[in-house]
Amino acid sequence: MKNIIVGQSGGPTAVINSSLLGVYKTAKDRGADTVYGMVHGIKGLLDGNVVDLSTRIRNELDMDLLKRTPSSFLGSCRYKLPDVNGHEDTYEKIFATLKKLDVCAFFYIGGNDSMDTIMRLTDYGNKIGSPIRFIGVPKTIDNDLAVTDHTPGFGSAAKYIAATTKEIIRDGLVYDYPVVSVIEVMGRNAGWLTAATALARGEDCEGVDEIYLPERVFDVDAFITRMGERLKENRSVVVAVSEGVKIADGRYVCELSDHVDYVDAFGHKQLAGTARFLAGRIAEKYGVKTRAIELSSLQRCAAHIQARIDVTEAYNCGGAAVKAAFEGKTGLVITLKRVSDDPYMCVAEAADVHEIANVEKKVPPEWITEDGTYVRQELVHYIMPLIQAEITPLWVNGLPRHVRLNETPLKR
Amino acid sequence: MKNIIVGQSGGPTAVINSSLLGVYKTAKDRGADTVYGMVHGIKGLLDGNVVDLSTRIRNELDMDLLKRTPSSFLGSCRYKLPDVNGHEDTYEKIFATLKKLDVCAFFYIGGNDSMDTIMRLTDYGNKIGSPIRFIGVPKTIDNDLAVTDHTPGFGSAAKYIAATTKEIIRDGLVYDYPVVSVIEVMGRNAGWLTAATALARGEDCEGVDEIYLPERVFDVDAFITRMGERLKENRSVVVAVSEGVKIADGRYVCELSDHVDYVDAFGHKQLAGTARFLAGRIAEKYGVKTRAIELSSLQRCAAHIQARIDVTEAYNCGGAAVKAAFEGKTGLVITLKRVSDDPYMCVAEAADVHEIANVEKKVPPEWITEDGTYVRQELVHYIMPLIQAEITPLWVNGLPRHVRLNETPLKR
Repeated sequence: MKNIIVGQSGGPTAVINSSLLGVYKTAKDRGADTVYGMVHGIKGLLDGNVVDLSTRIRNELDMDLLKRTPSSFLGSCRYKLPDVNGHEDTYEKIFATLKKLDVCAFFYIGGNDSMDTIMRLTDYGNKIGSPIRFIGVPKTIDNDLAVTDHTPGFGSAAKYIAATTKEIIRDGLVYDYPVVSVIEVMGRNAGWLTAATALARGEDCEGVDEIYLPERVFDVDAFITRMGERLKENRSVVVAVSEGVKIADGRYVCELSDHVDYVDAFGHKQLAGTARFLAGRIAEKYGVKTRAIELSSLQRCAAHIQARIDVTEAYNCGGAAVKAAFEGKTGLVITLKRVSDDPYMCVAEAADVHEIANVEKKVPPEWITEDGTYVRQELVHYIMPLIQAEITPLWVNGLPRHVRLNETPLKR
Repeated sequence: MKNIIVGQSGGPTAVINSSLLGVYKTAKDRGADTVYGMVHGIKGLLDGNVVDLSTRIRNELDMDLLKRTPSSFLGSCRYKLPDVNGHEDTYEKIFATLKKLDVCAFFYIGGNDSMDTIMRLTDYGNKIGSPIRFIGVPKTIDNDLAVTDHTPGFGSAAKYIAATTKEIIRDGLVYDYPVVSVIEVMGRNAGWLTAATALARGEDCEGVDEIYLPERVFDVDAFITRMGERLKENRSVVVAVSEGVKIADGRYVCELSDHVDYVDAFGHKQLAGTARFLAGRIAEKYGVKTRAIELSSLQRCAAHIQARIDVTEAYNCGGAAVKAAFEGKTGLVITLKRVSDDPYMCVAEAADVHEIANVEKKVPPEWITEDGTYVRQELVHYIMPLIQAEITPLWVNGLPRHVRLNETPLKR
């Protein structure tokens, strides 16, 4: 018996399906019989929603399209497993299903919330003496996982953000009157993605003028004053702000404006409107044209800009997870270790899931300028290798081609 | 004497610099001495802000980068020439400058507002018996120019919108709970760009569920009711709305929300917030997760997705303008004539500027479904050839490379 099962959880990335392919292909190469996929993660498993992946990934073309397909191919969930005490029935049900499917290993591709699932299943499995191995495959555009040098998904999102920021900066200079563009970037508590806007600055680009990360308290009045000073010097001012910036009393800047609240299953508020609020304040104060640009969900789904390095690493993390499980390991999360900065070289290793689950890695204070309005060159050097090289979309009839789960005919 | 001058005006497109290159290179090929560029259009000319383009476009690499550079290389303006009566001084100043530069032809790359400039200069030139030829080169992502089959810039914007919409649709299906995504697309009075979201539907994509163009009166209550019905059938609902949709009393939907107003020199209101307003109403009514996605200025500056056909046609329109001027013609705007639909073939022709200036071409009623919630297949067939084929960005250090006017050293 060498069946395995794999699921995807949390927000998608542009390369989450490369990790799925890494799990699938490596398992097949190493002699797995059936590779099952959980549809909508652990929640789907609990509902009995499982597919045989080899009926869905049928050939090499499917594999190359899968790598280029945004969103999670198997569907995702934001479901937090309950504490085992008092909820033994949930765990019994999961393990009964896994036994029925005769799987020897369980892989979960996700971020720090999803690694909580791997941790709980590992702990319960150890408690009941289950032989099933549980391995986490890292994934998040937010880059906020502990231990690992970076997370698969971050590089492609950073590449999209930096490329788009370059275009916005050029566009901002088109007219001969003052314009302030406020770019809102994802990242609730960690500023890694917002910091990626710093990569726009280069031989052919002025770069953004200021960068505000959620690691620092945001002062609205000081910001407005600084914008006034920038407007004295430049026709076009472009600033990047994290969606997660907060003022001194702990409120998000976007909460200062009217907005629709939505709280997910993990208790995270859905944030939006920071750029809009700030752009409005600048327009009000200085009477200039302002633009609020929310990069929105495109940051996690713009598969038409993928960093080749990120695709490869995402695939390798999936493959390394299978290798570890097939070597008998459990309770691990695959991590990336940067062996060398220049030339950039990185290998997959593994860490105990208890070190990673529910831990958030933020931008270190020494990588932010003292006044908190930009990032230091060390941070640019850290991100730059991760956005390198390209993978071309497969353009069909003028548009990037994708694959989707439900269109692949089932073999019965 | 065979000097010429060229300017760019109005909002940029992803291929407006291909038209600039078409003017520059064709003029040089046909023996022009100096090709002058107006910096920030006619307003720059009035201020004496003129450059010698051959000092800025130095070699073949510059040319290939120029084609791939977003925003208007020469800078743009939204300056409307005053009525000649009572403002003879403005016209005298322009013609004196043109005489001083010894130019035989004046080219202006722009939309219907910018063609007003060509019309007024032609009329004044004819009145004073000037030998200078005035030719307009069409440009606008909005595709709202009269006479021409379509406008350069529209195809690339449509390709970006359709590709992005495909990604948003995949992303919307990632979770197992209901989500309504409202995509807001540019196009104040004409729905061409919003209609381009229809191209997402295909073998690998469900497509958007509903499309609302500004050509039809928008009924907020009917829309909310329809969304409720969609939510009964689908987990993920994706709708596209034009930023310019208006309710029966003539107010823009975005005016129903709080927002910052900005009115440009042509009296156009800057619109934004339609998707946000509608998403808020849906969340309020049905208690579901909603996402408001404004494609914002990325629609006009996402040069990393260009339609090759659009780049070629933009270049050809610039070249055809030079050819017409050098053949002694004036008072024309270059137009595109679709010679054949399948296979798609298109040639450059020319029309009298008086037929084009200040005229807006809207989506014909017969290309919108009767209930006004989608577009007909004829419209998809019209747009589809215009997004075909690709031009790869020149990726340098992980990002698309651009050129900018001010970094090129001046030869003195």
